[in-house]
Formats: sequence, C-alpha cells, structure tokens
Amino acid sequence: MSGDPGAGFELDARLAADTAVVADWKLCRVLLMDDARFPWLILVPRKPGLVEIIDLDDNERLELTRETDRAMRLLRTVAPCDKLNVGALGNIVRQLHIHVVARRVGDAAWPGPVWGAGVPQRYEPAARNALVERLRADTGQA
Amino acid sequence: MSGDPGAGFELDARLAADTAVVADWKLCRVLLMDDARFPWLILVPRKPGLVEIIDLDDNERLELTRETDRAMRLLRTVAPCDKLNVGALGNIVRQLHIHVVARRVGDAAWPGPVWGAGVPQRYEPAARNALVERLRADTGQA
Repeated sequence: MSGDPGAGFELDARLAADTAVVADWKLCRVLLMDDARFPWLILVPRKPGLVEIIDLDDNERLELTRETDRAMRLLRTVAPCDKLNVGALGNIVRQLHIHVVARRVGDAAWPGPVWGAGVPQRYEPAARNALVERLRADTGQA
Repeated sequence: MSGDPGAGFELDARLAADTAVVADWKLCRVLLMDDARFPWLILVPRKPGLVEIIDLDDNERLELTRETDRAMRLLRTVAPCDKLNVGALGNIVRQLHIHVVARRVGDAAWPGPVWGAGVPQRYEPAARNALVERLRADTGQA
C-alpha cells in the first residue's frame, strides 16, 4: 500500500446513503447494502480518486483481491447462498467499489443481475444491526 | 498453478455458442462475446469443475487477477471506453467465467448492466474476425 490508506478518502454520498458501515479492512471500507432482498457487501478502497480497478497500484490490487475473496467467504457464513456474484460497474457511482452478493435460486432478481433490478427494500433497523454485528464478528480474520 | 491447466477442461456449450475464441492465456481461455453492442471479453479459467472465484487455489487466483487486469487494459486499446465493467455472475452458466466489458455513456444498456439487457446483435463475420485479430496482436504481452 502506498501512503496512508484512508488519507483524503471520502465515501461517495450515494453509497453512504444506501449502506451501513461494517468495518474498515486494510484497504477497503466494507459496507452492507441496505436491501433486505439480497445479502450484499460493497468494498470501497479507501484511496481518493479511484475509478477503475486498474487504477490501483500492484500491492493495492493484490489486497483488493484478498479482501474480495474474504467478503465472499464472509457472506457465505451469514447467509444461504447458491451463487456468489461479484461485480465492479461504476456506471452510476464512479467511485471505485466492488459488489459481492449472495444469490439464491428464485431470489427477487434471479437469474438476472441485482443491479437496477426492482425496488430496494430496506432492512428493519434491528435486523440490519444484527446482521452488521454478525459480519463484524469476522473482523479478526485476515 | 497446480497440475496442467487445461487438462479435462471443456468450455461450456452456451459460452462456446455465444463467443469467438481469442487466445489461451496462462490460466484462462479468452473469448470475445459475439455482441456488437459492447466490446466484451470473457475469461474462463481452463480447469474443470470451477464455479466460484474462491474455488481457485492461491496461485490461480493471483493469475486470474493478473489476466483480468490484462483484459481490462486490452479492451481499452481496441475500443472507446468510458467505464470498464467487470463481473463474475454465473447464475445461468455455472462454469466460472469473468466478464470484462467496455462501456460507453449512452450504449445500449447504459447505465445499467449488460447482463440480460436487450437482444444481442452478432457481429458481421468480417468485423468480428478483424476485432479478434486486433485482440490477438496483444497476446505477446504478459
């Protein structure tokens, strides 16, 4: 990692509005998408000005790979999952962010992608907080 | 890479029907999606039985990262691009495959995802072959 990860970083306002913060890992802020239809994490590298994955330097890119894999494994520990979906789109919110979503056969968008599908359904606050706590319990694992 | 990459590998019939082969890189078969609406590569690790990215071993995972980045850079050399989209879904075709797509503002699916959007438009064969040749010209770069 070059420099201090996090210096000058500001989370996009739209991402902030649609998510709850789970944790800061070494590179990424880990967010839970506030959409109870899909167990859905978003990883945002805490470095200003990033748009594409290939804007990362080599060490950061390797760390993003590690943290993406960790998010995939983590989601499977807290939610039933028939297929993991991973995506970096950024067509609407340009700040680099990686989606990791646990999909179930027959879920609200199956077999299509979650992005742009239907209307988000926010969690009940208590359920969202409980899920965030379960996700945070993993934070000790590298 | 553990074992001989490619041994026992068979490309999913649906992927084969929808694409043209560009090259075999160290880990992945590189395919051009036969949809003239979007410059679109698909990387398929040549190892049987893979479904999720985290089914790869550590060395293969690192190589997939390298080859995904290479595909992103390659696409930008052959096509105008406002945003790269990268995705591993596999909800329909379970064989592990990674999409890398060059998006333009105002393209046929903008700003939504390309997956499941509208009707694919196959290339004219001469145009497809010319694009494949341009993509292959990169093959010497690691």
